Amino acid sequence: MPKIVDHDQRRKELVETTWRVVARHGVSGATMRQIAEEAGFANGALKPYFATKAELLEATYSYVFAATETRIRRASRGKRGLAAVRALCREVLPVTPDLVSEARLVIAFWDGAARDTQDANMGARGLSSWCDVVAALLQQAQDDGEIRSGLDLPRLADVLLTHLYGTQVTAVLDPERFSADELMRQVDLFLELLLISPLGMTHTSAKSSG
Amino acid sequence: MPKIVDHDQRRKELVETTWRVVARHGVSGATMRQIAEEAGFANGALKPYFATKAELLEATYSYVFAATETRIRRASRGKRGLAAVRALCREVLPVTPDLVSEARLVIAFWDGAARDTQDANMGARGLSSWCDVVAALLQQAQDDGEIRSGLDLPRLADVLLTHLYGTQVTAVLDPERFSADELMRQVDLFLELLLISPLGMTHTSAKSSG
Repeated sequence: MPKIVDHDQRRKELVETTWRVVARHGVSGATMRQIAEEAGFANGALKPYFATKAELLEATYSYVFAATETRIRRASRGKRGLAAVRALCREVLPVTPDLVSEARLVIAFWDGAARDTQDANMGARGLSSWCDVVAALLQQAQDDGEIRSGLDLPRLADVLLTHLYGTQVTAVLDPERFSADELMRQVDLFLELLLISPLGMTHTSAKSSG
Repeated sequence: MPKIVDHDQRRKELVETTWRVVARHGVSGATMRQIAEEAGFANGALKPYFATKAELLEATYSYVFAATETRIRRASRGKRGLAAVRALCREVLPVTPDLVSEARLVIAFWDGAARDTQDANMGARGLSSWCDVVAALLQQAQDDGEIRSGLDLPRLADVLLTHLYGTQVTAVLDPERFSADELMRQVDLFLELLLISPLGMTHTSAKSSG
């Protein structure tokens, strides 16, 4: 009986292998040959799946973005407002070794996007959709009386997303100073600036569930 | 009479040429041959100045950081507190075509730093020193009564720097949405969150000089 090859599964394996190889050696250090070898493919056997390294990288970036979105959806399920914003941040901040590896890959993608309009457009669409999600959650937080009125929520959402993008860099440059705990404290500090009662005055902490 | 060669000047020319070539073609697209040609050097003549592309790139990054620091010092001369913070931000935000090119170079540096400990350390030192400068300026702003007390100023400085790093990416991914005006408005929005009187209430604008 001929072996049935699940081509989608093979593509997924190649993308996951690429993720690992790029995290280890960087985009410029990762070769098609190396990826093929590590994925258990003969050298030429990648071509039917991904004709060029650029195609393979693009699929890998898409995979990372999709994985992040899946994590965000799972983490924010059943949450609203600020709790949902915090859950989202916790999934985007590079707070685990795997997520720091992902940050390296994301920075490599940005480096490519700096010179490739198609990649830049893909990056811009992702950024824009996340800004919209955060703006909607901040609106919820305002509706629920968590944060004060009179705030420019869409622009604050852009600022928060820009900060999250910045943390991909700070965590890679200086993982001691910008540790997982510290990155989360930075987000909390930013969100505290939006609360009804100004910082430095007591305010009731977030209600526990119930 | 033999021609006197100013080696420091030659190194500076090579670095400036590298800056231009990398801004146009990216780090991976820039070759030693191309840089030599554009700088008016014979192909082998670079080697006494920079033995490898990595050395040349490192010198170019140092040059960009130094140029940014010079711009910041010039722009913030005679300013204190929030006015000095704004002046600093205006020099770091990618708000001109040249600064967007610099952002591309900075992203390429980060990509390298993600895999090279020495580059990461250089990046971490730069980041740390800028965080210290901003923290000191925020302290001035607090001393002058511009921003309220009870704020964690060193951490807020880290958040602002992280945001500035993030703008290098957002401006490159989506220059229409993250235009020069918009980037400055984002910084102003962040700084407004620190003012004595909360947003949405009237507050006196910054005093004019005099």
